[in-house]
Amino acid sequence: MYTAAFKVLEVLESKDEPVSGEHISRMLGISRSAVWKHVKELNSMGYEISASRKEGYRLTRKSNRLLPYEVHKHLRTSIIGKKMRYFESTPSTTWIGRQLGREGNARKMHGMVIIAEEQTGGIGRLGRSWVSPAGGVWITIVLKPAIPIDRVFMVTMAASVAVARAIRKEFELGALIKWPNDIFIGDRKVAGVLLELSAEADEIHYCLLGLGVNVNIPLGKLDQVKVPVTSISAEMGYDVDRASFLARLLKEFESRYLLIEAGEYEAIAREWKSLSCTIERRVRINTMKATFEGEAIDIDDFGALLIRKDNGKIERVIAGDCIQR
Amino acid sequence: MYTAAFKVLEVLESKDEPVSGEHISRMLGISRSAVWKHVKELNSMGYEISASRKEGYRLTRKSNRLLPYEVHKHLRTSIIGKKMRYFESTPSTTWIGRQLGREGNARKMHGMVIIAEEQTGGIGRLGRSWVSPAGGVWITIVLKPAIPIDRVFMVTMAASVAVARAIRKEFELGALIKWPNDIFIGDRKVAGVLLELSAEADEIHYCLLGLGVNVNIPLGKLDQVKVPVTSISAEMGYDVDRASFLARLLKEFESRYLLIEAGEYEAIAREWKSLSCTIERRVRINTMKATFEGEAIDIDDFGALLIRKDNGKIERVIAGDCIQR
Repeated sequence: MYTAAFKVLEVLESKDEPVSGEHISRMLGISRSAVWKHVKELNSMGYEISASRKEGYRLTRKSNRLLPYEVHKHLRTSIIGKKMRYFESTPSTTWIGRQLGREGNARKMHGMVIIAEEQTGGIGRLGRSWVSPAGGVWITIVLKPAIPIDRVFMVTMAASVAVARAIRKEFELGALIKWPNDIFIGDRKVAGVLLELSAEADEIHYCLLGLGVNVNIPLGKLDQVKVPVTSISAEMGYDVDRASFLARLLKEFESRYLLIEAGEYEAIAREWKSLSCTIERRVRINTMKATFEGEAIDIDDFGALLIRKDNGKIERVIAGDCIQR
Repeated sequence: MYTAAFKVLEVLESKDEPVSGEHISRMLGISRSAVWKHVKELNSMGYEISASRKEGYRLTRKSNRLLPYEVHKHLRTSIIGKKMRYFESTPSTTWIGRQLGREGNARKMHGMVIIAEEQTGGIGRLGRSWVSPAGGVWITIVLKPAIPIDRVFMVTMAASVAVARAIRKEFELGALIKWPNDIFIGDRKVAGVLLELSAEADEIHYCLLGLGVNVNIPLGKLDQVKVPVTSISAEMGYDVDRASFLARLLKEFESRYLLIEAGEYEAIAREWKSLSCTIERRVRINTMKATFEGEAIDIDDFGALLIRKDNGKIERVIAGDCIQR
């Protein structure tokens, strides 16, 4: 799964002291010049490795990139993230997912996580742009859910729950979910979830579940125009370990995704509600066809929001913009 | 929209007598050798044109292919089929649609009809093969419906209604709809409808509505293994005019599609029910997750079938295999 350079990294990580090139060369059965080449490669991936002729190589700082190698150290899942693709910079992980989804066998890609260090054309709902500089967690999970198509947005809900839970557990920040798919800390947005699907009535060909979390990003690098935004680092006051956070997030998602596959939709809806800052609030909803106001009273087992309008009529909406009063 | 050859065809069609090459050449402002070239091209498309040095050119038989030029002669729609793509042979029109959907601007392709004379890899539900020899009507309609995603299968229902209505009006055959998406004459399947979609919660990126109708096909060329199959020509005893039928079908579909865009879901469900041979029948349903039996009692405004099981419980299914008892 990894290039040979990571074999060298493993050796360096296993020692607290410098390791001679000769030792590495013997351990891995490669030439000393190959060792040197791998060290250069690791440097280029952000690992700081000191090299002295006397003492040998020493890992002085690990890379702060969101490399699969680092995420896998923490990962405790059985499906989600077992396969990963990493891009330093890409238009968007969804875009990569679309390419893969078309060409490949979706069943084989089930659970694959596509990671981008930065996205140059990140996509939000309705094709809106999503600012995604280096330091965030920008991923797309490729899924082939064996569920009826009208349940597909339970996957989005499970993902929202997973993001909120991971933020709460990892950083003890009070993350909440705003319908349909945003995660807030206080009145500032910190993350978003977006599901794209290719399907027929009988079968979901594949889903691309996009997750964007503002992790280690100075507020000045985020777009505050549409909605107030925050990042984990801004809330915590320091940069956090993204690899550990992502591993946690994937684990939280997997456990809920498996509930969906088992038909436990109600459990997901219940947890979503317990983390929601929308339910019991007065909201204005803009859908493709209409705008209306009322009280958000519930979410159903399909992911639709139920709003009681002032005339008492209940509206059920599966998607839309939501302004909370 | 058409090649220059069809200009020559128009001239020939406008006359009941032979037309000299010189006359055509003058009318269209092209050389006589260009006229000859166009006549050869028309021949290759199945038009029989006699040529005599004395009298000139005469159209003796029109092509029996399902050429856009022929369909447009009959077409009375405002959106559906204004743009067409024609293929003599292609793996499947859905496959073509996928290519176009990815590359192109779905909004601009809204209403485009992709026609194949024959499909070499026709696709039915769940990726099952769909036998599609020359003589059928194998089309995919590209749509970008501005409707909530949970209403998308109303488009399939509208298409099923349109196929049944077109067969009834054009040929006076008693076509009925078997849930979810098959058209039957008596106990033999004559057509099928399949919807593929690419979407997010807020927006349908595009739909590919596949319609396959066994029109002028000898029964021996159809696969009778899975379910008894018939064709229009087998029912009528002669080959029918496919271009006129397709134009009718597109018109029937368009009027119902516009109802969906207007939010008149109930009207579609009502008409579907009036043409259904499934409602009030005892059925066995196989879904991805379960198998159960009961009485099909209704269809809802989302396209889901409601089945009353023997224990009185109502099941709602959006998709599945249906065996009618």
